[in-house]
Amino acid sequence: MFDVRPVAYVIGLLTACLGASMLLPMALDMYVGNGHWPAFAESAIITAGAGTLVAVATSNGVADRLSIQQTFLLTTGVWLALPIFGALPLYVGATEARYVDAFFEAMSGLTTTGATVFTQLEDLPEGLKLWRSMLQWFGGIGIIVVAMVFLPELRVGGMQIFRSEAFDTMGKVLPRAVQIAAQISYFYVGLTVACGVAYVIVGMSPFEALNHALTTMSTGGFSTSDASFGAFQGIAEYVASFFMILASLPFVRYVQLLSGSARPLLRDSQLRAYLATILVFTLIFTLFRLYVFGDHPEEGFREGLFNVVSIISGTGYSSVDYQLWGSFAVATFFFLGLIGGCAGSTACSVKIFRYQLLFASIKAQIRRIHTPHGIFQPRYDGKPVGDDVLSSVMSFFVMFVVSLGIFAVLLGMTGLDFITSLSGAATALANIGPGLGSEIGPAGSFANLNDTAKWLLAAGMLVGRLELLAVYAIFTIRFWRA
Amino acid sequence: MFDVRPVAYVIGLLTACLGASMLLPMALDMYVGNGHWPAFAESAIITAGAGTLVAVATSNGVADRLSIQQTFLLTTGVWLALPIFGALPLYVGATEARYVDAFFEAMSGLTTTGATVFTQLEDLPEGLKLWRSMLQWFGGIGIIVVAMVFLPELRVGGMQIFRSEAFDTMGKVLPRAVQIAAQISYFYVGLTVACGVAYVIVGMSPFEALNHALTTMSTGGFSTSDASFGAFQGIAEYVASFFMILASLPFVRYVQLLSGSARPLLRDSQLRAYLATILVFTLIFTLFRLYVFGDHPEEGFREGLFNVVSIISGTGYSSVDYQLWGSFAVATFFFLGLIGGCAGSTACSVKIFRYQLLFASIKAQIRRIHTPHGIFQPRYDGKPVGDDVLSSVMSFFVMFVVSLGIFAVLLGMTGLDFITSLSGAATALANIGPGLGSEIGPAGSFANLNDTAKWLLAAGMLVGRLELLAVYAIFTIRFWRA
Ligand SMILES: [K+]
Ligand SMILES: [K+]
Repeated sequence: MFDVRPVAYVIGLLTACLGASMLLPMALDMYVGNGHWPAFAESAIITAGAGTLVAVATSNGVADRLSIQQTFLLTTGVWLALPIFGALPLYVGATEARYVDAFFEAMSGLTTTGATVFTQLEDLPEGLKLWRSMLQWFGGIGIIVVAMVFLPELRVGGMQIFRSEAFDTMGKVLPRAVQIAAQISYFYVGLTVACGVAYVIVGMSPFEALNHALTTMSTGGFSTSDASFGAFQGIAEYVASFFMILASLPFVRYVQLLSGSARPLLRDSQLRAYLATILVFTLIFTLFRLYVFGDHPEEGFREGLFNVVSIISGTGYSSVDYQLWGSFAVATFFFLGLIGGCAGSTACSVKIFRYQLLFASIKAQIRRIHTPHGIFQPRYDGKPVGDDVLSSVMSFFVMFVVSLGIFAVLLGMTGLDFITSLSGAATALANIGPGLGSEIGPAGSFANLNDTAKWLLAAGMLVGRLELLAVYAIFTIRFWRA
Repeated sequence: MFDVRPVAYVIGLLTACLGASMLLPMALDMYVGNGHWPAFAESAIITAGAGTLVAVATSNGVADRLSIQQTFLLTTGVWLALPIFGALPLYVGATEARYVDAFFEAMSGLTTTGATVFTQLEDLPEGLKLWRSMLQWFGGIGIIVVAMVFLPELRVGGMQIFRSEAFDTMGKVLPRAVQIAAQISYFYVGLTVACGVAYVIVGMSPFEALNHALTTMSTGGFSTSDASFGAFQGIAEYVASFFMILASLPFVRYVQLLSGSARPLLRDSQLRAYLATILVFTLIFTLFRLYVFGDHPEEGFREGLFNVVSIISGTGYSSVDYQLWGSFAVATFFFLGLIGGCAGSTACSVKIFRYQLLFASIKAQIRRIHTPHGIFQPRYDGKPVGDDVLSSVMSFFVMFVVSLGIFAVLLGMTGLDFITSLSGAATALANIGPGLGSEIGPAGSFANLNDTAKWLLAAGMLVGRLELLAVYAIFTIRFWRA
């Protein structure tokens, strides 16, 4: 078996950092005088302590260069270790929470899913509200780094297509991750601040604005009230839509933009397809609301835009229960959620570039049928796409659909009804947040699900967030033999 | 544009034959003295007349060798022309039927889907009952020929993998189709007779046995009573399960078996995987019924077997409303329906060999991740599979899922609820028959859907039956330019 120490070392360090970050909600709790600060202090000590211990114990095995197996294990290991410890403040601090609930919430946070098992969020201590938002924010930056460095390196889900783009310093994964995290974090922090300021301007309290900025830029979708964005209807929906879109575009384009090159941003084909999809569906819903329901055009446009962006970007805020718009809306939002945003952002799900590649491949195949001896290579962004990328993308799609089926059947076995099982599996795998139906729909909550279902959904979030193969590969015997 | 006369000629001939076959239900109607025989006579004259006219008008363009475009057009053309005329006896004969209902029923018949818009089937004249069953039986043999000759030739959905198998007389499609139809028809007729006799032995009336034999061997699923197979619980369910399995195995194996070679049958990998899947899910349901509901083991096994086979083979008979077994059963049956039987049979849906190929491809990809410079070719039946087959199969899967989404959204737009839209789209595309929910579920009917939904579902059946690409290719500009 390969050496796990370099992996454990990095996980230990990140866990220690997570522990240190718990001092922030602790400070907030002391400031507002809620008296919950010991919960954060305890959690911080346990988390930082455990992380430091692991890091110290494995520091004799530190390596700059990770093997492919070590890289896989690191990716999944981080997203398993951090929720385990990230759950502590919720477990210790919210007196009625059981560990399964705290873990679900932390996993939902760090995978930027945003499904919540907490109800009456308004009554949650401010420190815990902030902690939930922080988990999503950490998850968001983490996943951008994973999408830009780890997945291309691991050639998971066709992400190798983004491999040599902009950052072609092949070789060492960890130094590159640190370098990219640093570059990206300027934009991530900057946009979060801008988003928060905008929210304050349109009427949120500074604390609400902070929380929602953290969960908007991570396309996470946790809110500070049970009504989610229903509490902020009006111009705040436009602001949120704008920043949700920014959060689901490829961050590498921002880096290029700052270095003076706007061309890559303007000519990015996934970005164009993504914005076009948003535009089309927003118009459909506007017209639908206008002509079928006779609603005010501005209201129809605003709610259409907000909910389309919220679902397709995988944020999962809800401002209204769109299930009331009829079954056309329900079916459309279900499948919009399976489209997803751009690769290299905090967005999740299948992602728009994969559909572009799949359609290019189908198109090439139809041409090949008509001209059997012609050679037709699918193209993306004007460049021919290699067979390994195409088969990765297709495997991803198959695994996604098959996983959706398996998770839905397993959830059904725990007693959930069909629509809750199916939409629950979809919303977990695609890291969106709300499902469908009366229980886990936009107006519902995951609080009353049984424990098995909660564990299953948490597993689905992890699997979906790491693009399936990064997790599944670990379960092969071959993996551990290497 | 290419010459459409050879295509029109064959469609004309087949339509004329369909018209001639209407004399059978006419004779039955005369025999039982229902007085409906003029409906069949009129339909027969119109159909045979129209078919003959077209054949005569295009006989100057007859060609033995069809181009790839002509072959495509023929496949879709046949499955569009025959339902248009096959609907006539139902339209003229069942006084209350509107054309949309008659067309839906005929398309459901010829695609072997088995969804029905007729209620109180018991009161339908015997001639019409027989006609519905005959449509399915014709559709069944037709689809075996399409699956064995046309789709491999057209390289649709990876069917080219079955190209050189057993029949490698490359070249002329039509003579090969006739030859194979002749070879297959011995088994198709023989098994239908055997099935009918067995049904009589276990207690059906000869007329019921005839109808159910026709719809069993075609995995069609039309029945003579609203209760479907609920009217024949007990040993008849075992008989039906046995023949539904036989109907969903590759018919080429029977031909080989008769010519003295049992090896291909015993070593067929899709056949093994198919039977194993049936066994596993039957056992799961037996145990589930035994331990959760405390049902009698034989009853649980029998109903489990019957319903698993009915759904996975795409027959769609229902003996009980399995929705009452809880949401685990609902979710399982939904996804079982998306598996389907063996290629080269009357069964439909994605089909088991495609999943085998997809999993082989994913496995090869995982190996490639661990050993980036190794060469891993996915294998099927021990032989390496070419990239063109894999990309065909994957494109099929993507098109299937995307079509499912589009049809579900369109059905939702007509006002159907989400579960009816989604399961309706699935049951039409996979040619199964019953959907989910109270309206179109195993205990319901398609009668009360709106007309738009009926047209959409009929289109879905056609698209699904011809493995999507065979229909979609016709809608490309390039196709007509050739
Ligand atoms: K989310
Ligand atoms: K069927």
